[in-house]
Amino acid sequence: MSTPPIFDERFTGELAQLFAWRRDVRHFHTRPLPASVIDELLATACRAPSVGLSQPWRLVRVRHEPRREAVRALFRRCNADALALQPAERAGLYARLKLSGLQEAPEQIAVFIDPDPATGGGLGRATMPETLAYSAVLAIHTLWLEASARGLGLGWVSILDPDAMSATLDVPAHWRFIAYLCIGYPREPSDVPELERAGWERRLPLADLVLER
Amino acid sequence: MSTPPIFDERFTGELAQLFAWRRDVRHFHTRPLPASVIDELLATACRAPSVGLSQPWRLVRVRHEPRREAVRALFRRCNADALALQPAERAGLYARLKLSGLQEAPEQIAVFIDPDPATGGGLGRATMPETLAYSAVLAIHTLWLEASARGLGLGWVSILDPDAMSATLDVPAHWRFIAYLCIGYPREPSDVPELERAGWERRLPLADLVLER
Repeated sequence: MSTPPIFDERFTGELAQLFAWRRDVRHFHTRPLPASVIDELLATACRAPSVGLSQPWRLVRVRHEPRREAVRALFRRCNADALALQPAERAGLYARLKLSGLQEAPEQIAVFIDPDPATGGGLGRATMPETLAYSAVLAIHTLWLEASARGLGLGWVSILDPDAMSATLDVPAHWRFIAYLCIGYPREPSDVPELERAGWERRLPLADLVLER
Repeated sequence: MSTPPIFDERFTGELAQLFAWRRDVRHFHTRPLPASVIDELLATACRAPSVGLSQPWRLVRVRHEPRREAVRALFRRCNADALALQPAERAGLYARLKLSGLQEAPEQIAVFIDPDPATGGGLGRATMPETLAYSAVLAIHTLWLEASARGLGLGWVSILDPDAMSATLDVPAHWRFIAYLCIGYPREPSDVPELERAGWERRLPLADLVLER
């Protein structure tokens, strides 16, 4: 039986810094990561909590260049469609945003779930099957924070057709696509969201987000 | 322009400890948290990333005892239904698991999203509207880690009927329920999942969860 760690104020202060500087990164250097780093990040991700201990995430390291180009082509199509949905007064700003690092990021991970995993015994998901997808999000965030602590950036790409991703990456057709992650060294570390710096959106006051009952 | 922090090996080692000891807690002491702590946890949660910087989470601090009892009643009903779905050979073990700390946890937070928020300009969610719910999960995990770093436990309750939760807590009917969080001092800190200790499920080897393409 191990003894629980006690985290001191220096640690909690640094953790606050980690939360502040963990950004959604779209500007990467192309230089590769040291060989073992991606394996360590994936192992850390798999320590995340999951509903019923189901561990439904399936993490696909996308290395083959034709696969990466297929993902970029899908992104270009989906992003053109999304631009067409923007109201006229925001379309110009939308078109100027850089919304992915798919071209440059040296490491790319696609995240799926098995929507009917053999593990977990159904516990905790009878009324809320979406908790399987939520478990994968917890793994992604664990990986994101670990990457940030190592000076790496991560960008979550969601401008993709989820139904096309299983075929694009040749994974079982019943898997459900959750996210595509670009990972590498960030060009512009910041503690302010890029969308705030670009004038797209601002952070909301706590009073708009918290209530009591 | 601030300078990016550099996290040293002591910090990354302690972060690994935090990931290892962050558990889903169902056994709490009843003693209250210091007054400012819950406000600090909620503020930290709101620093999480969100799709298009939409910040769609709505965090409801549930304090009123009749509301808490209504949530417990809903849990009892949903958990009885879930037990009935278990195969005979697992029903006994399921019935012995303690699946919530709703009776004892001094702080309780219900998490919803506004599924059509005015913020974010639709960015990143045209093909994947579920990224709004995923953003709320990122806020929950941020809160969870911050609580764990402060020696607190958090238990995520999903054995609830999501459609009943808006009415139960008198929030706008179009909000979507994501999670109910119990927070307090944990009775049994551990670096092994409670469901693993109870023999419900085991952690999977990395080779079952990671692949390459």
